[in-house]
Amino acid sequence: MPTLIDYAEASDEVRAVFDDIKRSRGVHDVNNFWKALAVQPALLRRVWGNLKVVMAADGALPAEVKEMIYLAVSITNGCGYCIASHGAAARKAGMTPEQHGELLAVVAMANETNRLAFGLAVPVDPAFR
Amino acid sequence: MPTLIDYAEASDEVRAVFDDIKRSRGVHDVNNFWKALAVQPALLRRVWGNLKVVMAADGALPAEVKEMIYLAVSITNGCGYCIASHGAAARKAGMTPEQHGELLAVVAMANETNRLAFGLAVPVDPAFR
Amino acid sequence: MPTLIDYAEASDEVRAVFDDIKRSRGVHDVNNFWKALAVQPALLRRVWGNLKVVMAADGALPAEVKEMIYLAVSITNGCGYCIASHGAAARKAGMTPEQHGELLAVVAMANETNRLAFGLAVPVDPAFR
Amino acid sequence: MPTLIDYAEASDEVRAVFDDIKRSRGVHDVNNFWKALAVQPALLRRVWGNLKVVMAADGALPAEVKEMIYLAVSITNGCGYCIASHGAAARKAGMTPEQHGELLAVVAMANETNRLAFGLAVPVDPAFR
Amino acid sequence: MPTLIDYAEASDEVRAVFDDIKRSRGVHDVNNFWKALAVQPALLRRVWGNLKVVMAADGALPAEVKEMIYLAVSITNGCGYCIASHGAAARKAGMTPEQHGELLAVVAMANETNRLAFGLAVPVDPAFR
Amino acid sequence: MPTLIDYAEASDEVRAVFDDIKRSRGVHDVNNFWKALAVQPALLRRVWGNLKVVMAADGALPAEVKEMIYLAVSITNGCGYCIASHGAAARKAGMTPEQHGELLAVVAMANETNRLAFGLAVPVDPAFR
Repeated sequence: MPTLIDYAEASDEVRAVFDDIKRSRGVHDVNNFWKALAVQPALLRRVWGNLKVVMAADGALPAEVKEMIYLAVSITNGCGYCIASHGAAARKAGMTPEQHGELLAVVAMANETNRLAFGLAVPVDPAFR
Repeated sequence: MPTLIDYAEASDEVRAVFDDIKRSRGVHDVNNFWKALAVQPALLRRVWGNLKVVMAADGALPAEVKEMIYLAVSITNGCGYCIASHGAAARKAGMTPEQHGELLAVVAMANETNRLAFGLAVPVDPAFR
Repeated sequence: MPTLIDYAEASDEVRAVFDDIKRSRGVHDVNNFWKALAVQPALLRRVWGNLKVVMAADGALPAEVKEMIYLAVSITNGCGYCIASHGAAARKAGMTPEQHGELLAVVAMANETNRLAFGLAVPVDPAFR
Repeated sequence: MPTLIDYAEASDEVRAVFDDIKRSRGVHDVNNFWKALAVQPALLRRVWGNLKVVMAADGALPAEVKEMIYLAVSITNGCGYCIASHGAAARKAGMTPEQHGELLAVVAMANETNRLAFGLAVPVDPAFR
Repeated sequence: MPTLIDYAEASDEVRAVFDDIKRSRGVHDVNNFWKALAVQPALLRRVWGNLKVVMAADGALPAEVKEMIYLAVSITNGCGYCIASHGAAARKAGMTPEQHGELLAVVAMANETNRLAFGLAVPVDPAFR
Repeated sequence: MPTLIDYAEASDEVRAVFDDIKRSRGVHDVNNFWKALAVQPALLRRVWGNLKVVMAADGALPAEVKEMIYLAVSITNGCGYCIASHGAAARKAGMTPEQHGELLAVVAMANETNRLAFGLAVPVDPAFR
């Protein structure tokens, strides 16, 4: 079991990040991911700073699409925690059960055809260069 | 170098699949991926059959989003051919350079945080179960 | 480009391993893998010693099956060199084009269903424990 | 915890697939993998349709070999569910404890040498092209 | 649950390896990894023999650095058992919490930039060849 | 071939980052990785900002160790570009050929034993929790 730092026992530095996460996301408490990262305050601050920028609402991609891409990577890597948390985030951002089914199908098929391309050592088409 | 089967030298079985790919996609020739798979006609037919269904235009997700998910998986797996071909497909389906930049940022960050979740053995939050 | 050590320029320690590889395999020269490893003589000797035991002809699995398992792993990891060398070894050990086609299909499908199992967080059936 | 659809609560579409799985495999109930996939009936039907073809008994490779290749991929990807289910399937298809030991040794060694080939950037031998 | 072979029920062959592990490491019992491997005595003996050489104290790299490299690989692969055991080994070899934090940051960032290099298909600089 | 942005054709925003990289590293030109990232100026700036902090010289780990960890991850992921660039960086930071040999041995063995732990589903020892 990793150490999880709760708000009550957090340092001022950690609390400042937790407060920003809660404010940005409109939640009452932060997820275990942040409580585990809090053991390394500098890492916590940097990762949250990046995530806040990358997943910001006003980008070129809708929040739902970004969460689905996040989920697709997490499924490919087999990260159980990330699948659970970003699956929830994608649903919250609007992913329907039908879209989830298609995402699963695309992720599965991409992992399948990636191996066919590897296994056959397919050379890149001139048109793609 | 893998064997690539061109239309001119293909069997009737393979030509039937190539014709369907060309018709479905409105292209004059098929990509190397299909020419390499054509060494295994049964596999070629089955993989194309699946891809046609999974990537069909009338699903719950827009074609552009499906291609971006495909690209995200291919980047995570480091499949050079797949990144080239599905990158091109995503651009054709409407992915802008700005969206490509965000996709890269999300894929990179997801691969980063997946490892933080692994490395810290973060337990799944009760709310995600 | 990695440094490749040829027999002519190899030390006695490396030559002893190269001789054993050539004798065991009935070949006139060793593959690039061994020439690259020869930069690290101790590693070369240990890896060859292990490979010789693991891939030995008198085990519980036929040589062809072991080479196909090796190939399956290499395809999953996207190791181009390993796919080329162990694909050749599997063919030499008897893998037919039809068997290669089935191997590709199984490897591709396993990579696909692995992600469905990850994505759906399928709990292990009591019968499998 | 994912949603698992049992036969009793399944739709007619899902029941038709479950019936086919049970008949094809001679089992009284389907595994959790299929119950989890049943949340997406179209995906369930397509994946089962493919698996039935790929793992069919009358191919160029014996069932035992195909299950061992499946297991090798699942071990490489670290898919706990897939290792449990395809390990059981391989044993049922005839894999002995000695063969399991050799499979583990080959999978482990392939994952090891794949990284040596990556780490040394070994160029493909002309003979393998 | 895998079968775990305890010392009391182990064969003489397995006990000889267990005794060597205990002596080399100065511990009273071996970890579950070795108890699980003991089902395959030949594999157990070979893996321990290799590990003993690779992780030996008198190499060119300090024990702490080798354990941190081991941990970095295990985090990248998402191997929970290996993260737990080599995390403990690294701490025992001297890894401080601050060093652990930096290791996590480097591993996470390497996994991130690996995907940017893949996604952008960056060509190797002439200076690195 | 990806687009590579050279200093001469770079925007002021990109040049500012390039200048900082050159100053921080004492080099006359930036690597292809940065020239490829420059297509996405915001991503370039963020990734460089993070890398500068994570790989900073005054941390708890020596620069050489951090570069070796980076290299270990890159080898595990099979990222050719990253292996080339961080291999060069590790050598520049002091990694000797003997240390490189040990790093390769540890990375290879960790990838091997990770799969044995996966394949045997080894439960975490109570002492590691």
